[in-house]
Amino acid sequence: MSHIVREQAAREDALVERVRASFAATPDPRLKHLLEELTTSLHDYIRRVRLTESEWARVIDFLTRTGHITTETRQEFVLLSDVLGISMQTVIVGNPAEGDATEPTVFGPFFLNDSPRIDLGGDLSGGAAGEPAWVEGTVTDTHGVPIPGARIEVWEADEEGLYDVQHDEYAVYGRAHMFADERGAYRFWGLFPTPYPIPDDGPVGDLLTATGRSPYRAAHLHFMVTAPGYRTLVTHIFVRGDVLLESDSVFGVQDSLIYDWIHHSAGAPTPDGRDLGGAPWASTRFDIVLAVGEATDYADLMRQEP
Amino acid sequence: MSHIVREQAAREDALVERVRASFAATPDPRLKHLLEELTTSLHDYIRRVRLTESEWARVIDFLTRTGHITTETRQEFVLLSDVLGISMQTVIVGNPAEGDATEPTVFGPFFLNDSPRIDLGGDLSGGAAGEPAWVEGTVTDTHGVPIPGARIEVWEADEEGLYDVQHDEYAVYGRAHMFADERGAYRFWGLFPTPYPIPDDGPVGDLLTATGRSPYRAAHLHFMVTAPGYRTLVTHIFVRGDVLLESDSVFGVQDSLIYDWIHHSAGAPTPDGRDLGGAPWASTRFDIVLAVGEATDYADLMRQEP
Repeated sequence: MSHIVREQAAREDALVERVRASFAATPDPRLKHLLEELTTSLHDYIRRVRLTESEWARVIDFLTRTGHITTETRQEFVLLSDVLGISMQTVIVGNPAEGDATEPTVFGPFFLNDSPRIDLGGDLSGGAAGEPAWVEGTVTDTHGVPIPGARIEVWEADEEGLYDVQHDEYAVYGRAHMFADERGAYRFWGLFPTPYPIPDDGPVGDLLTATGRSPYRAAHLHFMVTAPGYRTLVTHIFVRGDVLLESDSVFGVQDSLIYDWIHHSAGAPTPDGRDLGGAPWASTRFDIVLAVGEATDYADLMRQEP
Repeated sequence: MSHIVREQAAREDALVERVRASFAATPDPRLKHLLEELTTSLHDYIRRVRLTESEWARVIDFLTRTGHITTETRQEFVLLSDVLGISMQTVIVGNPAEGDATEPTVFGPFFLNDSPRIDLGGDLSGGAAGEPAWVEGTVTDTHGVPIPGARIEVWEADEEGLYDVQHDEYAVYGRAHMFADERGAYRFWGLFPTPYPIPDDGPVGDLLTATGRSPYRAAHLHFMVTAPGYRTLVTHIFVRGDVLLESDSVFGVQDSLIYDWIHHSAGAPTPDGRDLGGAPWASTRFDIVLAVGEATDYADLMRQEP
């Protein structure tokens, strides 16, 4: 290695050490560790790709635009985290594999506290348009023991791919919670899920365009399942055969979360005898397995200051 | 390694590969490389520190606040880059070591195009308060050959640590440009430099507080030196003995940029016979060495869209 190359490497190394050392007096040991390692990772990135000063300036501009489009109702930094798989990796890291516990996925921005409670077998569509869908299953622990009374939150978009909260004036639709019965079983009527794009008219959309990526999410239903003594499960179920499974814009799809859905012809008898007025309907079964652990208040966790 | 540990690692690995693969169709090969490697670095960071979902939410909140305080005149993302040493590392990477070429440092936010031109030996203080300081030196290439006509831009704060542009209504002061003479020599009167803090009333200031770091920059004079056929040099000179050299908030100090300054008592004769009305004055010598290379328009590079 030539003298010049050694000198250059020494300058770069020395800076990394100086920045790491600047955090030496941080009172909170976790914050100290997070910033020291962030320093190592970011500097390693700059050195590995030989980031140019003009590329750096473009990054600053991108972050500035991302900040300026972010409002109380539009979180472009979360979108950025989503399309880089950061949100999903944080979810995976935060919810380690445990037996056959159901895999988690991203929470998303469309959850609301205080959803309507429905009885088992009730309808959460709230009159929204879409193909009626019957979903049933059980909630058990990783040994197959039922968890009676588990709370099951479900939320989903209508057949136009819009959640109730995306309308300026909205009636609550496409969301509800229910409680598993004494055998851990649950069942409800919802809507067969519809794919939709994430907001793509901002910097994150520009990034997707520049990389030839689709803003679409694979069709899914959101679930959040809680029971005392168990780790809160936030997940989706997807639809086998959906062409978007491979390109979900936020990397929320896991193989174990793809389910077979049955499409029933118009007039086919329903599980609970409900009269759908001759409409076709769909059904699937989703057996939920909770890991032992702590509850997390995701609604609170994800709340951003305006 | 247990089955569970292997399964968890496999999930994390698989996600990294999916995100990297999502950039496969990026038309611009450099952008593709930058995003693939960014994916690797960020995911590696999350996995290494086991970032929690609540820590992730704090990062999103921090970036949101950083975006919201950023305006046309306040660039908090640049400050963030500065205090993490990112700006400085980008400068080092972008200006590789070459012989004894003068080391570069950060550009900072206070440069202005169209500074006044002064003759060699002229005064750039513009009437601002501070101890008069005589600076002289030469501009040469890395073989010691003078570079006549090199353009030398100098800018600095006044004795209160403020640049002219930091006043709502300002007269131009503390900045000028001049051209080296036929022997590559230059000389000017300025002000002995004064330390000042970076803006610390925003999220970046909160970060400095939480880590026990000072917002102060070591005292310095800014230089930008250009000549056809040479790499644009952006640098500072610092003052040996300044107690802030070790804790410069943006990591701009390099050992080779620390200079000895002489403090002359009141009434001591000046190099050019200038009458300072009995005031004490300071002096230093800064010999500038340019590397062969391309010019960079830093003022344009650093311009941020509002």
